[in-house]
Amino acid sequence: MLAALTGKTKKEKGEIMKRPEASIAIQTLPQSVTGDEVLRIVDKVIEYIKSTGLKTVVGPFETVIEGDFEKLMYIAKECQLICIREGAASLLTYIKVAYNPNGGTWSIDEKISKHI
Amino acid sequence: MLAALTGKTKKEKGEIMKRPEASIAIQTLPQSVTGDEVLRIVDKVIEYIKSTGLKTVVGPFETVIEGDFEKLMYIAKECQLICIREGAASLLTYIKVAYNPNGGTWSIDEKISKHI
Amino acid sequence: MLAALTGKTKKEKGEIMKRPEASIAIQTLPQSVTGDEVLRIVDKVIEYIKSTGLKTVVGPFETVIEGDFEKLMYIAKECQLICIREGAASLLTYIKVAYNPNGGTWSIDEKISKHI
Amino acid sequence: MLAALTGKTKKEKGEIMKRPEASIAIQTLPQSVTGDEVLRIVDKVIEYIKSTGLKTVVGPFETVIEGDFEKLMYIAKECQLICIREGAASLLTYIKVAYNPNGGTWSIDEKISKHI
Repeated sequence: MLAALTGKTKKEKGEIMKRPEASIAIQTLPQSVTGDEVLRIVDKVIEYIKSTGLKTVVGPFETVIEGDFEKLMYIAKECQLICIREGAASLLTYIKVAYNPNGGTWSIDEKISKHI
Repeated sequence: MLAALTGKTKKEKGEIMKRPEASIAIQTLPQSVTGDEVLRIVDKVIEYIKSTGLKTVVGPFETVIEGDFEKLMYIAKECQLICIREGAASLLTYIKVAYNPNGGTWSIDEKISKHI
Repeated sequence: MLAALTGKTKKEKGEIMKRPEASIAIQTLPQSVTGDEVLRIVDKVIEYIKSTGLKTVVGPFETVIEGDFEKLMYIAKECQLICIREGAASLLTYIKVAYNPNGGTWSIDEKISKHI
Repeated sequence: MLAALTGKTKKEKGEIMKRPEASIAIQTLPQSVTGDEVLRIVDKVIEYIKSTGLKTVVGPFETVIEGDFEKLMYIAKECQLICIREGAASLLTYIKVAYNPNGGTWSIDEKISKHI
């Protein structure tokens, strides 16, 4: 599989696309707040994630972004600080990371475009 | 918040929607297979999930469905058996469950429709 | 690696041990209850898990058991029903599964005994 | 509950114990390596975690540490870099975080000491 060796993959229209180094899924659960306040805080976190300009997919349990590993880990940390700044006394966070510095990890598009 | 008390929520166009009892996110990692074979097996799992007829959102790390709790837990088990039947010698699975038999949990639409 | 082929592994003292078919980690978060009530409900879930007689490891974020896959998935479901019966209006659950019907998955002892 | 307000909790013998700001669970899955090589790499990660001097609990699916939030997030990142340096071409990581800058999160001891 050439793609795996070169870190490149063919998009459907023939364009060559570089695979991202990493992708990360973040679920933040603000604690000690309820209902609409949870939604408001989670929306602030999503707003921040989108403001990074990285490819973003908002799912029902987690938000996924792809890009440089160090940057993604930094964003994961920031999301949690935003939760606290927005009023959560504490939080629980669930993070998944796919990281491949040797050729890149599957892109979000590769994983889900055919299922949408 | 009336919605929380009644288990009902207003859709944007004024229609009343019943909240699902539960929603579940499933990520299955077939082991001892690689590359395209992983994708083929995961696609079989997603195909099965979609065949249940439940509201389905395929994300980069996990697939989410909503409905009756017992049914969702049954589907989570089946997904893993399908992985093995399709050729994975073993697997790792990551499952998230939101379950509220008293009024229903947030629906997938409530959680993500504004972010799409 | 003979162990992987035969589903057997040597314990330190030379005894042959059968590997479990599966192991599962369960974290249940009762919602709409706080502080000591969360602990009381989680303790009830752990009490139930221990009552199954399966090898159990209670960790800070999750409880792990090993055994037959179908039985473990049944227990994972029961844990959530217990949470509700004990007074949580709703819950969030995080489950990890390792399943290998072909030779067995690593046992809890294989994974952690040297680190204790 | 005074403990929640003061960030302190009574140990059984009357000693006052400061709650940690955060605790974090890390599961790293080295990819493209198998069997004993997975174990060797994961052991290197655990060795690194223990070398930080923080309270550490090694579980079958994840290793848990407690301490300062920023430090724990840094360690979570390092664990992944170690995996790659030790020979994994890529990896998947699962992280759980409990973070409470207002009074501290439950300590590992509070959560599990009665179950050991």
